[in-house]
Amino acid sequence: MSLMTLGFEADYARFFAEDDLQGNAFYLNQLPTDTVECSLKIKSDVMLAGLPYFVGAFNFLGAELDYNDFKKYEGKNFKKGEVITFKLPFAIALSGERVALNLLQQATRISTFTQKFVEIAAGSKTTILDTRKTTPGLRQLEKYAVRVGGAHNHRFSQSDAWMIKDNHKTFFGGLEKAWAYFKSMQTYYQNIIVEIHSLDELALAFDLGVEHVMLDNFSKEDLAKAVAMKKAGVTYEVSGGVKLETLKDALLEGIDAISIGALTHSAPHIDLSMKLKPVGSK
Amino acid sequence: MSLMTLGFEADYARFFAEDDLQGNAFYLNQLPTDTVECSLKIKSDVMLAGLPYFVGAFNFLGAELDYNDFKKYEGKNFKKGEVITFKLPFAIALSGERVALNLLQQATRISTFTQKFVEIAAGSKTTILDTRKTTPGLRQLEKYAVRVGGAHNHRFSQSDAWMIKDNHKTFFGGLEKAWAYFKSMQTYYQNIIVEIHSLDELALAFDLGVEHVMLDNFSKEDLAKAVAMKKAGVTYEVSGGVKLETLKDALLEGIDAISIGALTHSAPHIDLSMKLKPVGSK
Amino acid sequence: MSLMTLGFEADYARFFAEDDLQGNAFYLNQLPTDTVECSLKIKSDVMLAGLPYFVGAFNFLGAELDYNDFKKYEGKNFKKGEVITFKLPFAIALSGERVALNLLQQATRISTFTQKFVEIAAGSKTTILDTRKTTPGLRQLEKYAVRVGGAHNHRFSQSDAWMIKDNHKTFFGGLEKAWAYFKSMQTYYQNIIVEIHSLDELALAFDLGVEHVMLDNFSKEDLAKAVAMKKAGVTYEVSGGVKLETLKDALLEGIDAISIGALTHSAPHIDLSMKLKPVGSK
Amino acid sequence: MSLMTLGFEADYARFFAEDDLQGNAFYLNQLPTDTVECSLKIKSDVMLAGLPYFVGAFNFLGAELDYNDFKKYEGKNFKKGEVITFKLPFAIALSGERVALNLLQQATRISTFTQKFVEIAAGSKTTILDTRKTTPGLRQLEKYAVRVGGAHNHRFSQSDAWMIKDNHKTFFGGLEKAWAYFKSMQTYYQNIIVEIHSLDELALAFDLGVEHVMLDNFSKEDLAKAVAMKKAGVTYEVSGGVKLETLKDALLEGIDAISIGALTHSAPHIDLSMKLKPVGSK
Amino acid sequence: MSLMTLGFEADYARFFAEDDLQGNAFYLNQLPTDTVECSLKIKSDVMLAGLPYFVGAFNFLGAELDYNDFKKYEGKNFKKGEVITFKLPFAIALSGERVALNLLQQATRISTFTQKFVEIAAGSKTTILDTRKTTPGLRQLEKYAVRVGGAHNHRFSQSDAWMIKDNHKTFFGGLEKAWAYFKSMQTYYQNIIVEIHSLDELALAFDLGVEHVMLDNFSKEDLAKAVAMKKAGVTYEVSGGVKLETLKDALLEGIDAISIGALTHSAPHIDLSMKLKPVGSK
Amino acid sequence: MSLMTLGFEADYARFFAEDDLQGNAFYLNQLPTDTVECSLKIKSDVMLAGLPYFVGAFNFLGAELDYNDFKKYEGKNFKKGEVITFKLPFAIALSGERVALNLLQQATRISTFTQKFVEIAAGSKTTILDTRKTTPGLRQLEKYAVRVGGAHNHRFSQSDAWMIKDNHKTFFGGLEKAWAYFKSMQTYYQNIIVEIHSLDELALAFDLGVEHVMLDNFSKEDLAKAVAMKKAGVTYEVSGGVKLETLKDALLEGIDAISIGALTHSAPHIDLSMKLKPVGSK
Repeated sequence: MSLMTLGFEADYARFFAEDDLQGNAFYLNQLPTDTVECSLKIKSDVMLAGLPYFVGAFNFLGAELDYNDFKKYEGKNFKKGEVITFKLPFAIALSGERVALNLLQQATRISTFTQKFVEIAAGSKTTILDTRKTTPGLRQLEKYAVRVGGAHNHRFSQSDAWMIKDNHKTFFGGLEKAWAYFKSMQTYYQNIIVEIHSLDELALAFDLGVEHVMLDNFSKEDLAKAVAMKKAGVTYEVSGGVKLETLKDALLEGIDAISIGALTHSAPHIDLSMKLKPVGSK
Repeated sequence: MSLMTLGFEADYARFFAEDDLQGNAFYLNQLPTDTVECSLKIKSDVMLAGLPYFVGAFNFLGAELDYNDFKKYEGKNFKKGEVITFKLPFAIALSGERVALNLLQQATRISTFTQKFVEIAAGSKTTILDTRKTTPGLRQLEKYAVRVGGAHNHRFSQSDAWMIKDNHKTFFGGLEKAWAYFKSMQTYYQNIIVEIHSLDELALAFDLGVEHVMLDNFSKEDLAKAVAMKKAGVTYEVSGGVKLETLKDALLEGIDAISIGALTHSAPHIDLSMKLKPVGSK
Repeated sequence: MSLMTLGFEADYARFFAEDDLQGNAFYLNQLPTDTVECSLKIKSDVMLAGLPYFVGAFNFLGAELDYNDFKKYEGKNFKKGEVITFKLPFAIALSGERVALNLLQQATRISTFTQKFVEIAAGSKTTILDTRKTTPGLRQLEKYAVRVGGAHNHRFSQSDAWMIKDNHKTFFGGLEKAWAYFKSMQTYYQNIIVEIHSLDELALAFDLGVEHVMLDNFSKEDLAKAVAMKKAGVTYEVSGGVKLETLKDALLEGIDAISIGALTHSAPHIDLSMKLKPVGSK
Repeated sequence: MSLMTLGFEADYARFFAEDDLQGNAFYLNQLPTDTVECSLKIKSDVMLAGLPYFVGAFNFLGAELDYNDFKKYEGKNFKKGEVITFKLPFAIALSGERVALNLLQQATRISTFTQKFVEIAAGSKTTILDTRKTTPGLRQLEKYAVRVGGAHNHRFSQSDAWMIKDNHKTFFGGLEKAWAYFKSMQTYYQNIIVEIHSLDELALAFDLGVEHVMLDNFSKEDLAKAVAMKKAGVTYEVSGGVKLETLKDALLEGIDAISIGALTHSAPHIDLSMKLKPVGSK
Repeated sequence: MSLMTLGFEADYARFFAEDDLQGNAFYLNQLPTDTVECSLKIKSDVMLAGLPYFVGAFNFLGAELDYNDFKKYEGKNFKKGEVITFKLPFAIALSGERVALNLLQQATRISTFTQKFVEIAAGSKTTILDTRKTTPGLRQLEKYAVRVGGAHNHRFSQSDAWMIKDNHKTFFGGLEKAWAYFKSMQTYYQNIIVEIHSLDELALAFDLGVEHVMLDNFSKEDLAKAVAMKKAGVTYEVSGGVKLETLKDALLEGIDAISIGALTHSAPHIDLSMKLKPVGSK
Repeated sequence: MSLMTLGFEADYARFFAEDDLQGNAFYLNQLPTDTVECSLKIKSDVMLAGLPYFVGAFNFLGAELDYNDFKKYEGKNFKKGEVITFKLPFAIALSGERVALNLLQQATRISTFTQKFVEIAAGSKTTILDTRKTTPGLRQLEKYAVRVGGAHNHRFSQSDAWMIKDNHKTFFGGLEKAWAYFKSMQTYYQNIIVEIHSLDELALAFDLGVEHVMLDNFSKEDLAKAVAMKKAGVTYEVSGGVKLETLKDALLEGIDAISIGALTHSAPHIDLSMKLKPVGSK
């Protein structure tokens, strides 16, 4: 049983509409429904993620795949050339293939890329986080893939936690006023994160009682100074263009988390394909 | 007037639901609606695409931007550091920013990348095409960006044209049988494209009367031989892992088109941001 | 202002999706939006109906037609060759034409056909009614067209009133038991109509206290006898394959209504077309 | 398994909402669910079509009919009076009957009428085609019924192929300019069909390189002349008010296809009904 | 089998979206799915109603509860402290609990309160009715609960029957004109109810031929006089702020029905909770 | 401009569908659209809330009310008998009235009731909170009304913050294991609230490092002891059947918040009505 794709039916409907499922109706109905053996081919080294979505796409078309048969592959590292096999009616395999693969590739590119960041941060006490820079319509899938890859999720939406950024400060006339505004609007269990751009501003944040600090685009030196200034009970998140090559610089003792947009927006494409053959053939 | 986002309201609804527009309702309603000046900042060299979607996102939230004011930027090449300015109510600018930028970045990465392929193919008679390897839910936007980038669109959906691939041949017991099956199912004005893997198969295709040939993963030598065999009235499309570096090899006289999945699935992320300031401030 | 198409947006969305509005997006956006003069050509004698739906289709695409300019044509009789003119942006006229005409033709065929029945019944005290034999998805439009044609509407849905038919009687074991069942389930202001097939059954209905009788497929003779038996406070509806040619036979004093499925399912197609020309050309 | 009604759930939801399924909820829930034997009665000679939609309507309400039990009847010719029997829970049979029959009648009227055209064209090399003059919301079902009736489908939507009609020529300033416009917008595998109204225009079309010609409302004589002018590789489609009685005139050698709006908009109503009785009763 | 929640899937989708089912996806998927024993605890004396909705909520999440196992509890009176037990996967029990209980509480508060009114009216010939003063989005559930509580339903929607109220009279210029307007608009089997505010107006209503009278906010004395004036074939409905304490005053011979908004808008909250424990534990 | 009802169109569509807007179409379209003066009558002392939803309902039907004209009334205390006037087309006023009033009453009952709790807590440092015990489908509106009434919002959904309750402890085998489980699943900025039932368990929570404690159904004495045990940086929320009469007992120094389900589920109904009269009449 996979609860993960609950509420995802409308998404499948959209994805298949985009691929003209209704226009295909006559064709679909005539296609043979003989069972075929499907081989999902891994075409580069990956950490596979997104099988609940992959399986769900075929089931949306009427297949009866059991996610439990796939669970063991989810989050597992595969070498190029490895293959996962399963069975489907021919009509469904053909009709669902493109959507199912597109979803699986989108998740797997992210889990595979995320894993590289997580491995670099392995020894440290710093948590790797994603951002809201996700593909519109696929945030759930992409944030899930980040988790499979071993990192953690930043807020899911604008209202999960509130973030005071430059634009807020400019508009309200400075951090102090923006902070006052958001404090008055806060719901009880909601966190407020403040984006900080200088050591002076950091000092001001401490004065205001800010608990969640996001150090944005700090130089290596300023980062070290910020760590030295850190107060008890405060969390530090580093952000701003962190890449695989620069991640190490931010892994200081005292940095609680690093948020990295690249996890979702710059994960390199990985290629998967699906081959079908009649059951019994070689 | 932009007809392009007609029917896209449901997509915006979904994208903003994902970002918890309803959960934000109280907050949204309280945010000041003073007009702010918005600066869209181009952070690397790009060919900008997707402004109808960008503009539409703010208008979905109640703004009244006029796409005609943005039309001149669509498909234009920008240098890193250039800026486009416009005005919005503060509440809408803040609430719409992330979704609007995510959409614009998705389109612009594709148009920018596509343009590079198109430039290489410039002198030839070969058309650059996309594939159906698009992000689920964003095919319309992505295929539009390909057009802005100067390339052409392959089929939009499974039913636009029919394609006979390896899986069909295996299932039906060879190209001949698959061809017969699809011919009998064809609607009158529908094209059938046949994926061909060898020169022998190409010869067979000619015998069957195939008009649209897709030469899949042909070596440079075989490609030349295939061109030599070409019959009048037949179109040749080359496919299979074509990259920026290898594109030139396929630009032979006689190749009508090259389809490239990379246009949509491997276009490098490009970064855009938006800065707000009260009208009248500097 | 036309409240009639309120809630009809989802229907337009579906009708245009069927005609691939999204696939057309790129094309639509490029089509010139110059104003053109549209001529709606009436190609046979009709009573025109459905202009709110016709106008709404173009407005759904962003036009700003005012239904008040069309109101005078709704329900009016036109001769073959007459023309109604109005203005639209070219892109919208072209893209909306097929859906708008298909809707208008569907309504107009019904109003035109209905009018013929109403004219025959003109001198009598009998009301002409439609049935639920409507096109799935268009019941609102079709029942509206019946009204425009001068007839009245039977129930809109299964729950508007309850009808005890043969199938109910067979299942419950006779009219008496079916009547008892439905009486016990009735909501307070709901009518129960009983389909009656013989004079004996009619007598039973009177005994049970039935107020709304539907005389189904009665011969001319039995109809006369039924009328003779009629009790005060009871309504008589005649049903069963009534056609233009046979309508007169059922127009007896005492028959309150005649329900005719043909109004909606057998109204002959009428043809309308739309011609466009640039404003200023002749 | 019937893939044809995939994605049709939303349509059923609409059709039943129109018939007030929710308002019926209390009633529905109280209705006995004993199994009844259903007799689908064929009330005139027909070629039956639409059983996947018919079966799907009851299954939407929770029945578990297997389309495989009905497949043998689909596309089969029935004589008036023949009966198809199957079993359903009483509550579902009653509640689904009207919607299910309305759908089946809509498809069957079209397949039955189409078959008459196809029989006339039987000896020729000309294909019978439908048009986009379909009932809004039911294009999929109606084009399917055309196929069952033995004819072929013209384009499904505006974007399937492009058609240059009078309105385009008037707007762009003649066929030559309209052709140039559409050629520049064409996606790679998309066909462009040109509506031709005279022999002179036909000659121009050849000069422009048009491949798909639609001869609109040509006289018998001009049709013969057009055939004489035909070039290799070009297809000829005849259109314009073709009826059962006039079809023969257009069945010339050299006419590849005839498109007939009447298939969908003028197919005469056919009547079907459903009788229920408790299992075991006679 | 429960047909009652047919068409209710979209409502569940909304209710769970509100509770962030998608945001919960990762969490949901990881939660153990071991079977737990659920105890629905009744925390005050109630007549239980709404179990089809309660059961449906868990089934929407993928559970396979059988409503037949719960049918015996629906409409039954429970004492504080009684418990109903059943089994669910842990993940589903936890995720569905709040929505399922909120629905069950909403229905049960209404059935429990309704029952009190029905008991008072028990000896009389007067029917207790609800109104359209229901919670937006839950009218079906609330009107169902009224039935379970033993009362009957007034009209479900504005179009079920028409009601002429003060606002209509004021606008049209008096009852006589309003009546004429609505008579001319009436569909054949639709009732028209007239809200009457004085004995003089009642006399006028009789003159007009009104069949369904609603006596609004009549004093006890005027009610008696109205009853004395009653004509054969006319129905009397009393309305206007009737409460448990004042119900008796309106239960006169001759009053056919009393409509009470309080049934739905003032039913006191009742509390239910759900406890889970691993199967086998005590 | 009211951003609050953004994304609420689908809800209005549902609410009006429930009231059969489509069935009313013919009627609606015929109703006069003359402007009438509307008087919203306050029938008991209230703090008014929900005007954005009230205004939005009429605007959904095509009215053009400006929320800015109503803003001054939102959150204001009104005495019985006061009146707010505005203008609408007659057809829209009549058709929208019931839905608009039902929404306004639902919000106003909650703000009015909430205000009473907030006034009692006025001198203290304790925040009044709502719960998730809201009406399915109206959580946004109800939590908004709580804010208008002066209280704060607890979490909006299951995923906003996580709560460890009895059911979790029972399932995982104690608080310690449940805590470990949820800590491992936590996203970075998500709070975990632990429901505590005894002083011993409270001590354990401190040992585990719990930051957010919910003291459930504590006696007055235990509450005092709990406060005495409180650690720095920890928040205390009191919950469990708190009523107007018992609120004072929980308002201890050290109690940060009290969550009260009654705010939403037990707020007494308040009555509002709307009277219409032609403009110019008295």
